[in-house]
Amino acid sequence: MALQSHPQPPPPSSEDKTEALDPLLHAFGFKVEEVTPHKICGHLRVTEKSCQPFKVLHGGVSALISESLASMGAHLASGLQRVAGIHLSINHMKRAELGDLIFGEASPISVGKTIQVWEVRLWKIDPSNSGLKSLVSSSRVTLLCNMPVPEHAKDASQALKKYAKL
Amino acid sequence: MALQSHPQPPPPSSEDKTEALDPLLHAFGFKVEEVTPHKICGHLRVTEKSCQPFKVLHGGVSALISESLASMGAHLASGLQRVAGIHLSINHMKRAELGDLIFGEASPISVGKTIQVWEVRLWKIDPSNSGLKSLVSSSRVTLLCNMPVPEHAKDASQALKKYAKL
Amino acid sequence: MALQSHPQPPPPSSEDKTEALDPLLHAFGFKVEEVTPHKICGHLRVTEKSCQPFKVLHGGVSALISESLASMGAHLASGLQRVAGIHLSINHMKRAELGDLIFGEASPISVGKTIQVWEVRLWKIDPSNSGLKSLVSSSRVTLLCNMPVPEHAKDASQALKKYAKL
Amino acid sequence: MALQSHPQPPPPSSEDKTEALDPLLHAFGFKVEEVTPHKICGHLRVTEKSCQPFKVLHGGVSALISESLASMGAHLASGLQRVAGIHLSINHMKRAELGDLIFGEASPISVGKTIQVWEVRLWKIDPSNSGLKSLVSSSRVTLLCNMPVPEHAKDASQALKKYAKL
Repeated sequence: MALQSHPQPPPPSSEDKTEALDPLLHAFGFKVEEVTPHKICGHLRVTEKSCQPFKVLHGGVSALISESLASMGAHLASGLQRVAGIHLSINHMKRAELGDLIFGEASPISVGKTIQVWEVRLWKIDPSNSGLKSLVSSSRVTLLCNMPVPEHAKDASQALKKYAKL
Repeated sequence: MALQSHPQPPPPSSEDKTEALDPLLHAFGFKVEEVTPHKICGHLRVTEKSCQPFKVLHGGVSALISESLASMGAHLASGLQRVAGIHLSINHMKRAELGDLIFGEASPISVGKTIQVWEVRLWKIDPSNSGLKSLVSSSRVTLLCNMPVPEHAKDASQALKKYAKL
Repeated sequence: MALQSHPQPPPPSSEDKTEALDPLLHAFGFKVEEVTPHKICGHLRVTEKSCQPFKVLHGGVSALISESLASMGAHLASGLQRVAGIHLSINHMKRAELGDLIFGEASPISVGKTIQVWEVRLWKIDPSNSGLKSLVSSSRVTLLCNMPVPEHAKDASQALKKYAKL
Repeated sequence: MALQSHPQPPPPSSEDKTEALDPLLHAFGFKVEEVTPHKICGHLRVTEKSCQPFKVLHGGVSALISESLASMGAHLASGLQRVAGIHLSINHMKRAELGDLIFGEASPISVGKTIQVWEVRLWKIDPSNSGLKSLVSSSRVTLLCNMPVPEHAKDASQALKKYAKL
């Protein structure tokens, strides 16, 4: 790949990618890393923007991350059909506090033609020992998957296609 | 109401109240109205800030609203003990689009000493007929309720006490 | 009712009805009462057959009753299409003990063409005051509804048609 | 181990064990195999006793198996405290038909002092290729765990202690 006369654009930063993929996820400071039909993952540093009034990670943010990652994954796994989350079930196990580093990962449990089920887990990394992770939440997202993408929403698919490894 | 010698401060706006009660809820534009141990309600105008990439209300926002309203309610119903949401289950029924007006209401299903279960429903108001509501989502939030409020988090209880009708 | 030249068969007992509608429900002693597209209800006396080893109503029996009643209701509400429960979420609130009388009722929360969501609640009747009911469990059943009934399973629809008020 | 003068009793059959551990599970024909605080597993041959009217495995039976296995596991993992399932969330993925062999396994996701969360998965074994398994259902059981065993229910713990590998 030497001697390129036209310089390549730098690879998109994780921030740009997340903003293009899901602006809300970006608003909380989440950074999407991998995007494939088999795994979507990323991380979040807990700040005031993602906390509830008791200064711990807002359970609703964990739920939002879960819906987001599962939707991206299901959209890819369905061959870019429109998907709609119809149910989310989330267990909150451990609190995460201001400054904690959260790692999130979504993976498919069942990929049918009509229904997909994804699991999303969030861990926190122990700051004193980065090898130790403890489960913050675990969720199941059930999605309806056989719907055409409406014309006005093709852009959303484009962003996903651009950043995914298919 | 005439002849008040000491002028009353104006009642807090719905925005101020929401910001004090749960900054994240405020960030999406949600406005808390009633706050009692039996019912927490408010409304949200759907804007870009609360949409997913397909320009419909983000399922994670519905989940976040549900966690927030249920937590406030359970905190009040427990006599201001600390509560922690341990499970959320949400059914998404109908999509809400940019500009839709969403009305949300949380009410207790079971208030035990250790566990509380709250139901939170979101409706959208038909813009052409404000008398017609259709259910956008319905959720169940399960909360653990017998925990002391840590010293550094007393402020959160204060805000709730200030705005609640007990 | 006088002077009938052709004697009418006796109305089916609640036991016969339940056995025809769902043999498993019958096996636990549940008795189906009303069967309509808007409401399915019935009752159960808690016996050893429906208890877990600690002699209280088995949580799995509450779940089974919920799946059964919701499936019947959704099958009727879909115009006798085949329905398949894809998700059940149940909160167990209060224990029911040997001898308790349980009353169960399913009602639709959302009846779409593809997805239906039903709520099923079980109460126990206070033996010393039959006017007092307390909630034993509350569940949400999500069902996929647009599937043809396979030829070999037409009988199941027949039983439902026979006993339902449409 | 040769030359035992006193013959050992035969090991308990899987049926006896299941009947002692949970009579309802036994009633459907489920056979418990392993019982440890880290894993509870067993199998079921689908018969008329476990089917719904359309002759496929009753979703309520999958839910009941999940509640049972998770309860045994949580009871062991809590050091034989009384546990109470407070929530079950189950995704039904694939139908299982008369004659199918179902394999079930429960494992802990989070073992706290107050709350435990267990995952229970049921697979069916492909009859033509016993190496192929497909997921029938996947569930999460949330249990409250810090309660004393009432005097009249000590027997239930005894059975579990007898058959468990601790």
